[in-house]
Amino acid sequence: MIREITSSTNPQIKHLRALSSSKKARQESDTFIIEGWRGIQTLLDHKSPYYNIEQLVISKDWNKPLPQTIDTLVLPAHVFEKISDVRNAQGILAVVSPIEMEHTLPTTGKFLLLDNLRDPGNLGTLIRSAVGSGFDGVLLYGDCVEPFNPKVIRSTMGTFAFSKVWNITPPELFQTLENGFDLCVTTGLDGENLYDAAFSDKTILVIGSEAHGVSEELSERATKKITIPLQPECESLNAAIAGSICMFHMQNSHR
Amino acid sequence: MIREITSSTNPQIKHLRALSSSKKARQESDTFIIEGWRGIQTLLDHKSPYYNIEQLVISKDWNKPLPQTIDTLVLPAHVFEKISDVRNAQGILAVVSPIEMEHTLPTTGKFLLLDNLRDPGNLGTLIRSAVGSGFDGVLLYGDCVEPFNPKVIRSTMGTFAFSKVWNITPPELFQTLENGFDLCVTTGLDGENLYDAAFSDKTILVIGSEAHGVSEELSERATKKITIPLQPECESLNAAIAGSICMFHMQNSHR
Repeated sequence: MIREITSSTNPQIKHLRALSSSKKARQESDTFIIEGWRGIQTLLDHKSPYYNIEQLVISKDWNKPLPQTIDTLVLPAHVFEKISDVRNAQGILAVVSPIEMEHTLPTTGKFLLLDNLRDPGNLGTLIRSAVGSGFDGVLLYGDCVEPFNPKVIRSTMGTFAFSKVWNITPPELFQTLENGFDLCVTTGLDGENLYDAAFSDKTILVIGSEAHGVSEELSERATKKITIPLQPECESLNAAIAGSICMFHMQNSHR
Repeated sequence: MIREITSSTNPQIKHLRALSSSKKARQESDTFIIEGWRGIQTLLDHKSPYYNIEQLVISKDWNKPLPQTIDTLVLPAHVFEKISDVRNAQGILAVVSPIEMEHTLPTTGKFLLLDNLRDPGNLGTLIRSAVGSGFDGVLLYGDCVEPFNPKVIRSTMGTFAFSKVWNITPPELFQTLENGFDLCVTTGLDGENLYDAAFSDKTILVIGSEAHGVSEELSERATKKITIPLQPECESLNAAIAGSICMFHMQNSHR
């Protein structure tokens, strides 16, 4: 179904704008927005096990073919720009909803746990690296940035559609540890050298917040501490870089 | 020497603002700006072999001790904000100049070559990872983002002060290759698996631009092609992530 709206005061336009800018609007409607052709194309080409496209929204001058089975809204360019979150809008966005899933705890596999990670670009990049390296999921612990924030979605470059990302509470995490998972924290000092360490097939890798590192409660529960060896002139690495280095090493070393 | 300026129309204020916003102003004066306490503290604590602090500029409410040997300019908070490049300015910036150095080509060591890299955050993060991993320098090839752009400097988190970064022309690069360097390009497809590869002590690692990857002229000259193994759901990695994974692996594997 293709419909056209021309007025920027139409309630649907207001709703789309709210989805772009407001976490509350996303939570209440259980939908979020993905903007840009590359990510949307990924979702159209490869059926995602975790998300559905509810609606496509395009600018009037959009000229690439789109599937006719998806509800599509056509807007004048100036109205499209009002709901777009990016500077040079390509003229396409999609309203996406998560598929209802049973929320289960990990029983085996390698998971990335982000401890109060605040930066949207870091979260998106880490989701992309987790999918790329073959990690089994991303756990959000504490007060992390919301994963459906448009900047997060954009920096995943379409990979969010293939990634299990969920919030984990302290009791859930500690129950998981009782199931035999290693809690492996990354620390700037006094951990085992990443390149000397061996990793269990049941590992939760913890990356701390940009400002404060790994929180004390997780450090105390850690069964393993690792350190990426750094030259003295460099105090620390960016959180997304550190997490990606660890994930790719853990998946590809000792082969 | 401590001086105070109160008017935002003072020519010195205009000059500082230009250093923040204009590449031309930075090139003409051969100085640039570093903003934020963390980076400046690094420069004050550890003498940089490559850069001098010419001047400190602080907001009137700055209250941490500073060395009295450096020319210091004190500004009212509202004037400081006018020259600041960040949202929540901390109230300190430094004007920095490069130390005159002989511009020599690498004779041995591991170097990162960035091929038309455009994103300031990626360049800054890659400089940080190059210093952290112990790479010997960063070569800028083609039309890369200017390394003295404030966003680049900020994302290096102070490590630019310990990093050799220079522009390399095609003839200089090709002469370096004649000196026995491997030109090792990273590619999404059909390269040798990074984790199976061995690396020479004379290697130039090439990371391509965000939009177009490694340019054809460098691909043709490559003596080695490597690929980071990726799951099919993830087409590529962020340039800063890919470069950092390769550098840390090359420096720490096979020990």
